[in-house]
Amino acid sequence: MKRELIDRFRPLFYPQSVAVIGASMAPTKWGFGITHNIIQGRYPGALYPINLKQKEIMSRKAYPSVLDVPGPVDLAMVVVPPPKVMGVIKNCQAKKVGAAVIITAGFGEVGPEERRMQDEVTRQIRKTPEFVVIGPNCQGIMSTEAKLYAQIIFAQPSAGDLSIVSQSGNVGATAIQWGQMNRCGFNKFVSSGNEAITTTEDLIEYYGADSTTKVILSYVEGLKDARRFLEVARRVTPHKPIVMLKGGLTDAGGKAAASHTGSMAGQAKIFEGACRQVGVTMTYDFDEFFFTAAAFLGQPLPKGNRVVVVTLGGGWGVIAADAAIREGLDVIPLDKKIIEKLNSFLESRWSHNNPVDLAASEGEDLLSRTLEAVISDPNVDGIIQLGVGFGGRIREMRKNPSFLLADNPALMDLVIDRVEKRDRIVTESILELKERYGKPIISGSDAAVGRGVPGNVTLEHLSRHNHFIHQTPLRAARTFANLIRYTAFRRAVGANSPGV
Amino acid sequence: MKRELIDRFRPLFYPQSVAVIGASMAPTKWGFGITHNIIQGRYPGALYPINLKQKEIMSRKAYPSVLDVPGPVDLAMVVVPPPKVMGVIKNCQAKKVGAAVIITAGFGEVGPEERRMQDEVTRQIRKTPEFVVIGPNCQGIMSTEAKLYAQIIFAQPSAGDLSIVSQSGNVGATAIQWGQMNRCGFNKFVSSGNEAITTTEDLIEYYGADSTTKVILSYVEGLKDARRFLEVARRVTPHKPIVMLKGGLTDAGGKAAASHTGSMAGQAKIFEGACRQVGVTMTYDFDEFFFTAAAFLGQPLPKGNRVVVVTLGGGWGVIAADAAIREGLDVIPLDKKIIEKLNSFLESRWSHNNPVDLAASEGEDLLSRTLEAVISDPNVDGIIQLGVGFGGRIREMRKNPSFLLADNPALMDLVIDRVEKRDRIVTESILELKERYGKPIISGSDAAVGRGVPGNVTLEHLSRHNHFIHQTPLRAARTFANLIRYTAFRRAVGANSPGV
Repeated sequence: MKRELIDRFRPLFYPQSVAVIGASMAPTKWGFGITHNIIQGRYPGALYPINLKQKEIMSRKAYPSVLDVPGPVDLAMVVVPPPKVMGVIKNCQAKKVGAAVIITAGFGEVGPEERRMQDEVTRQIRKTPEFVVIGPNCQGIMSTEAKLYAQIIFAQPSAGDLSIVSQSGNVGATAIQWGQMNRCGFNKFVSSGNEAITTTEDLIEYYGADSTTKVILSYVEGLKDARRFLEVARRVTPHKPIVMLKGGLTDAGGKAAASHTGSMAGQAKIFEGACRQVGVTMTYDFDEFFFTAAAFLGQPLPKGNRVVVVTLGGGWGVIAADAAIREGLDVIPLDKKIIEKLNSFLESRWSHNNPVDLAASEGEDLLSRTLEAVISDPNVDGIIQLGVGFGGRIREMRKNPSFLLADNPALMDLVIDRVEKRDRIVTESILELKERYGKPIISGSDAAVGRGVPGNVTLEHLSRHNHFIHQTPLRAARTFANLIRYTAFRRAVGANSPGV
Repeated sequence: MKRELIDRFRPLFYPQSVAVIGASMAPTKWGFGITHNIIQGRYPGALYPINLKQKEIMSRKAYPSVLDVPGPVDLAMVVVPPPKVMGVIKNCQAKKVGAAVIITAGFGEVGPEERRMQDEVTRQIRKTPEFVVIGPNCQGIMSTEAKLYAQIIFAQPSAGDLSIVSQSGNVGATAIQWGQMNRCGFNKFVSSGNEAITTTEDLIEYYGADSTTKVILSYVEGLKDARRFLEVARRVTPHKPIVMLKGGLTDAGGKAAASHTGSMAGQAKIFEGACRQVGVTMTYDFDEFFFTAAAFLGQPLPKGNRVVVVTLGGGWGVIAADAAIREGLDVIPLDKKIIEKLNSFLESRWSHNNPVDLAASEGEDLLSRTLEAVISDPNVDGIIQLGVGFGGRIREMRKNPSFLLADNPALMDLVIDRVEKRDRIVTESILELKERYGKPIISGSDAAVGRGVPGNVTLEHLSRHNHFIHQTPLRAARTFANLIRYTAFRRAVGANSPGV
């Protein structure tokens, strides 16, 4: 069953050859973008532009029809106008193409007439059940292991462990953008469009079986078969997290459409409750969507909700503790033993409380020693850690001529070296302590505000180890809460694998 | 009364001369950072480093005591160790210094003994009631009109209309950082520390009277006199918004400290309710804090909560509509007249619904024409607009060698020019329509994710006109809801000025 599933989707995600039907040299056409993106992504397989008039497109020999391609075609990207889709599909079937992605819009999403046209194409496709078809009305797919970037959007994420199925291409693209800004890679991406044939349910089932996908991101507006979705999710979530962003409050079962406040209704809530019950992690904004999924990659699952906030100083700790309380976490009082241990090396002005506020205590290793003192306590399930990566930020600010010390480069080097050294020590201890104690350390830092991870050596190092920095303490707390909910679900269903 | 208040705080915010008592040449000392920041900020007044041993600090003549300074001293920045603060304060009083900011930590925030020391200093200060004193245990102050950056943190925001009083220097700094990343200026900043003398209440009263402050940001953990705060706020909010981030869920009246979930309690909720009743805008995360305050600068206040979401395409609109519904906005059905108007120029695949989804309709002016068709409708109170600034993002991505078209610069120019032209048209229409119809247009765009505003010509242009772009649709909706709450308050109290 699992093997069957993997084999079935192989032409889609690991094609040996791709035809772009409707390839174009006009930069405003989608047939241009897709062809160009595939080439730019260094796709190593055979690429066949299909165009009735051109002999060559982007230095590749073009063919008038997929039937004219000399070798086999695993995957067809379809970007022809709607009335031509039926003919193209028939040609693909004649050619025994393994999979097709119909980018073309103007089908069921428009009106009843176009819907009928979509249904005809669907009936035709179903004549060859082994033919995997995505769309219509979608942005394409990516498979980073195969170096396949067959989509119209401008994004070429690096390889990674997150896979996306999104009913909105733009939402999927935004998730990828949050990932790229945090130097996080992706494994597979499908913009599923109208889902005439292949549905979100099918793709989650596949991602569940796909060993290279560690966490599944799903943006859903409406499901063809909500019952099947829940069945599939129930099988997947005990061993692999599904993180969902749900759009369309008013109609969870059908085509999503926001409508009058008065009619905001129970169906969406019922669907949400059902999803939670089968272990799906529900999120409500783009960065929560990304950061929660990414946390499953790099964080041990917390055993419970007892959290300690550790901060270098100031109100961030207070805000994080508030957020944690609002998220239902237990901001526990500090055990006496922890207090004694911290007293032995922190300056007396530290907070003596949870949040543990170092109050700008000097010393490069104080933060890492504090983290260890806290996380080693058996009553602590995890830490929300605030403040890391400032060296990189100063380095960046240096480029601003109005910035502090800009006219004193030697001194600036000294300051940066000092902060980066502290960053390095903290970084290593965060990564090491998570592993040693099997407890999560969720980070938030205002170094992640603004220009973010790229160019910040500390944050880039953490990203490489799947440790991502939230922009605010509230969002760190939210991620922590999402991890706890998933742990509780796994415990409830008796899942006993060590986690992700 | 108002004149008195303005005069009283003049030495603090508009000093002709500043003494840094405890100025230092050691880069790790706060006495170094402050002196350096003041110089780096091009403070035009007289600057006197005070240091017992040095004859000169950073090319400025140093004096052993403030009493040795030849001319008058308006403002003293105090960075000496705690036991020396009393002597310094007495010297300042003898010198008739107008205002002092006590950076020094190690007072009331540490323990009862240090608290007594703070009380003694406080009693001494009160002997000269005209002496304005901030702190102790704070990060300093900024007054951008006076080019005064007298603080230990690394930030030199440009001049603007937002003023901050923050009981946590780090929280204030984070608000400023969000501002800088969005190219928003600030007017005044006070890290109020332990508030031994001057309190949040006092500073909000002053900002209320200060004509150069248009919006007040306040981070509060605990208030000396909550009743007085509410009285002051009640006088200020009808003509000037106060945006609050409240830290410390467990104790709204005293020193904030997060504690056990079980004791999370009514007092914080009561305080929050009281704040709302006097028109204070309550926020819960850093970017909400900044973006809500910034929206008061550039957005007409909405007359009601009837909102239309306008999006270039895809799930962003659905998510924005969901968020708007969750925030209590009325995502109204589109009026027939709007639908007819949009039908006359949009491609038939547009959504015909709210959210208005252009579904990638081609044409540079379609978005701006859509915005006008919607906002001119008398049943629409405002727009949440999604998607602007992509030209700048592509321009930035161009630097990435693996990015699309990177090996085809001519084509890249063409694409960028095209997108930036559309951006320019939309930008101008957003700014013009807001003014013409007196209705808010709140923008969210994934162009604001990641590298953000700096370097993105479109977004920078919008920032210069106090129009700021939210990173996600949810946050745009949150800001809209905050504007509506404030409108409702103003209406309830009969405020009739045209807004901010």
